[in-house]
Amino acid sequence: MTVTTIKSLSTQSIKKPILPNQYFTLNTAKDVWTLTNEAAAVASTNANNKGREMLNLGQGFFSYSPPDFILKDLQKVVEIPLVNQYSPTRGRPTLINELINLYQPFYGDKVKLEKDNVTVHTGANEAIFSCLMGLLNKCDEVIVFEPFFDQYISNIELAGGVVRYVPINPPKELNERVTKGEEWEIDWEILQKTINNKTKAIILNTPHNPIGKVFTREELLKLGNICVENNILIISDEVYEHLYFTPEFTRIATLSPEIAQLTLSVGSAGKSFAATGWRLGWVISLNKELLNYVAKAHTRICFASPSPFQEAVAKALPQATKISYFKQMQQDYIRKFKILTDAFDKLNLPYTISEGSYFICANFKNVKIPNDYPFPEELLSKGKDFRISYWLMNELGIVAIPPTEFYIKEHEAAAENLLRFAVCKDDDYLEKAAERFQLLKQYL
Amino acid sequence: MTVTTIKSLSTQSIKKPILPNQYFTLNTAKDVWTLTNEAAAVASTNANNKGREMLNLGQGFFSYSPPDFILKDLQKVVEIPLVNQYSPTRGRPTLINELINLYQPFYGDKVKLEKDNVTVHTGANEAIFSCLMGLLNKCDEVIVFEPFFDQYISNIELAGGVVRYVPINPPKELNERVTKGEEWEIDWEILQKTINNKTKAIILNTPHNPIGKVFTREELLKLGNICVENNILIISDEVYEHLYFTPEFTRIATLSPEIAQLTLSVGSAGKSFAATGWRLGWVISLNKELLNYVAKAHTRICFASPSPFQEAVAKALPQATKISYFKQMQQDYIRKFKILTDAFDKLNLPYTISEGSYFICANFKNVKIPNDYPFPEELLSKGKDFRISYWLMNELGIVAIPPTEFYIKEHEAAAENLLRFAVCKDDDYLEKAAERFQLLKQYL
Repeated sequence: MTVTTIKSLSTQSIKKPILPNQYFTLNTAKDVWTLTNEAAAVASTNANNKGREMLNLGQGFFSYSPPDFILKDLQKVVEIPLVNQYSPTRGRPTLINELINLYQPFYGDKVKLEKDNVTVHTGANEAIFSCLMGLLNKCDEVIVFEPFFDQYISNIELAGGVVRYVPINPPKELNERVTKGEEWEIDWEILQKTINNKTKAIILNTPHNPIGKVFTREELLKLGNICVENNILIISDEVYEHLYFTPEFTRIATLSPEIAQLTLSVGSAGKSFAATGWRLGWVISLNKELLNYVAKAHTRICFASPSPFQEAVAKALPQATKISYFKQMQQDYIRKFKILTDAFDKLNLPYTISEGSYFICANFKNVKIPNDYPFPEELLSKGKDFRISYWLMNELGIVAIPPTEFYIKEHEAAAENLLRFAVCKDDDYLEKAAERFQLLKQYL
Repeated sequence: MTVTTIKSLSTQSIKKPILPNQYFTLNTAKDVWTLTNEAAAVASTNANNKGREMLNLGQGFFSYSPPDFILKDLQKVVEIPLVNQYSPTRGRPTLINELINLYQPFYGDKVKLEKDNVTVHTGANEAIFSCLMGLLNKCDEVIVFEPFFDQYISNIELAGGVVRYVPINPPKELNERVTKGEEWEIDWEILQKTINNKTKAIILNTPHNPIGKVFTREELLKLGNICVENNILIISDEVYEHLYFTPEFTRIATLSPEIAQLTLSVGSAGKSFAATGWRLGWVISLNKELLNYVAKAHTRICFASPSPFQEAVAKALPQATKISYFKQMQQDYIRKFKILTDAFDKLNLPYTISEGSYFICANFKNVKIPNDYPFPEELLSKGKDFRISYWLMNELGIVAIPPTEFYIKEHEAAAENLLRFAVCKDDDYLEKAAERFQLLKQYL
């Protein structure tokens, strides 16, 4: 957080100027999404990119449609008048029932999920914000693992909390060879040192954006038990829950009754059904009392969530199970990742093997970027990866996200050679990118 | 705000209990919507209501579909892959353009609305919350007029603000005769006394829910100039902007350049297109710098708003203008209101003539409700109107909202004989209610 002079919006010289929320006047840096999208728009007009398509593997939106069955459901349900009106603030009963059907098997026979174990939200982002607004008090500390999804930080701070960072350490040979998600490990020592009597919650993300790590049962059990010992809430962001390529995906809430009582698990219709623009997410928790506060916050923030999408997802979920849609999606993504990893292998560029999510990080340490490249001034104070990203979009017309945005300044060196690519694109599009990447040969 | 013991969610006896956000543990009263819906569900099963339909004129949702042209647009646009993906956080350019086209005429030739004068939100509620989160600092005071829409209060308080109440005084003969919205008047003296150097903003609502008042040009100019004098932001909730039955509807932002610089005007697709479940709203402001902070807050709260609805509304707006959809809607509502006012006239029940919105308040002072009626205990500490509402749903099977919920305790006597009815229902449904109301004769 850089302290700058507080801005006044008043144009008149009067006693009481209008000061916007200081949180925003003190945090004025452009977010990575804006910065990247704006730079890409400019890059698309330069001489290199003239006459060729910009290949955007930056933001994690799908280049293709949601599956036909859910679109058909949507087109049908909007013809029912009440499906276009307010839903109950905690969600439509039809959707809540289908979410119970979806998640019940993971919790086993001893637990019976009920409607009060679910709240429906306006996207996973608003779900996490509701968890934080519902449960934090001023100066409560929240532990976030680095690298982190950038929205966590402002969501914690806007809810009055204080962020404490604990690194997920990269493998030592990150710059030398292809590495796996499992080689990235929580710094348990720093975690233990960071916990104190103000620690209220941790945010966990598995499968992990951007490193593609799927936390193992052992890691989650260790983490969960530390939380139980210290009575720390676990907000488990599992939006990529159907996209894992490891033998199993473990949900921390299912590991013990004590861990379950502390856990809020977050899911997303946007990620599950290739519909990031639908803004529909949910929270599942065996702790109904905790969840009740999440619901109270949601009622005030958004009141209710989009009804037609709730109804369409309710109809689509049993169909998805029936046709093994999520299994098929895994197969599709194994193929999509291979298109890019084959391209990186040909170039001998190291990368992180994605165990989950739709992201892959490639390592550009060996790519020779001219030191005197005309970088815009706003990038000079940023991590090296911001300049690699700028160079790549201008020279190759490929857009990627610099992952040091997901670190605090002191720790960003860990990821300074990486770029994050999203593979949630049509195969054709990925093939074009794979071919375009071969232009890197002249810079190796 | 009632102070109760702080609840701990921890079931174990350990040092550090988990305390939910104290805002919610201290404000535990059930909201009027939950209270009314739950009571109506129980009432529907009693002997009086056996075999007859409950007529719900409580919550302001439409009993009918959005117009066919916008539903067709929606069904069409979801077939475009990218329409199902993230929109820019400030809104889709197509929608922003059409909103500019819609609002430009109200601002005249001297002002040219541009894309930075608009932000798109996830419903008007989230729009207002974004205004407050973007612009309030801790302990800033916000003036709210009584009666108020209940969400304003928690939205101000969750953003760190302090609510100050200024009454809109009812006409003296409210219990004796039919009155008009224009007879309800801001208590200008209290307003002036309430303003101090901590006053940051006022929230205005015109057309007004629940009293149906459309503020006049003179009132708005007076209010606007007071705000200019004291540099107070105006959050103008204009979600019922197309539903006015007065010769004109005045938008405060259009009254002077100085007022415009302080005003954020809020609109709603849900209210305009009978689609309250779509969760789509917007803020228009000539002050781009102010609006920029609203956008920053929105980015963190919801990130972006539902894309397909944005695209459908963008397509529908020019069609709506072409076929005079909003004019037609006014005519429809004049007819709908008449169905109920004819029924009240026959009973000689006073009511407030609605100048705007889709609400009407009827006066039940002369309805004889037995003192020993078996009211549930939770209603005994509430305004008299809560008991009238309970009696009405149990005896007549008609559901209404008690408007003292929109007052602080000290001032609720002003509305204790009123019930709010929503007329955004099919004519048939309103006719049934009109007939059912005649059962009141035996209680007069």
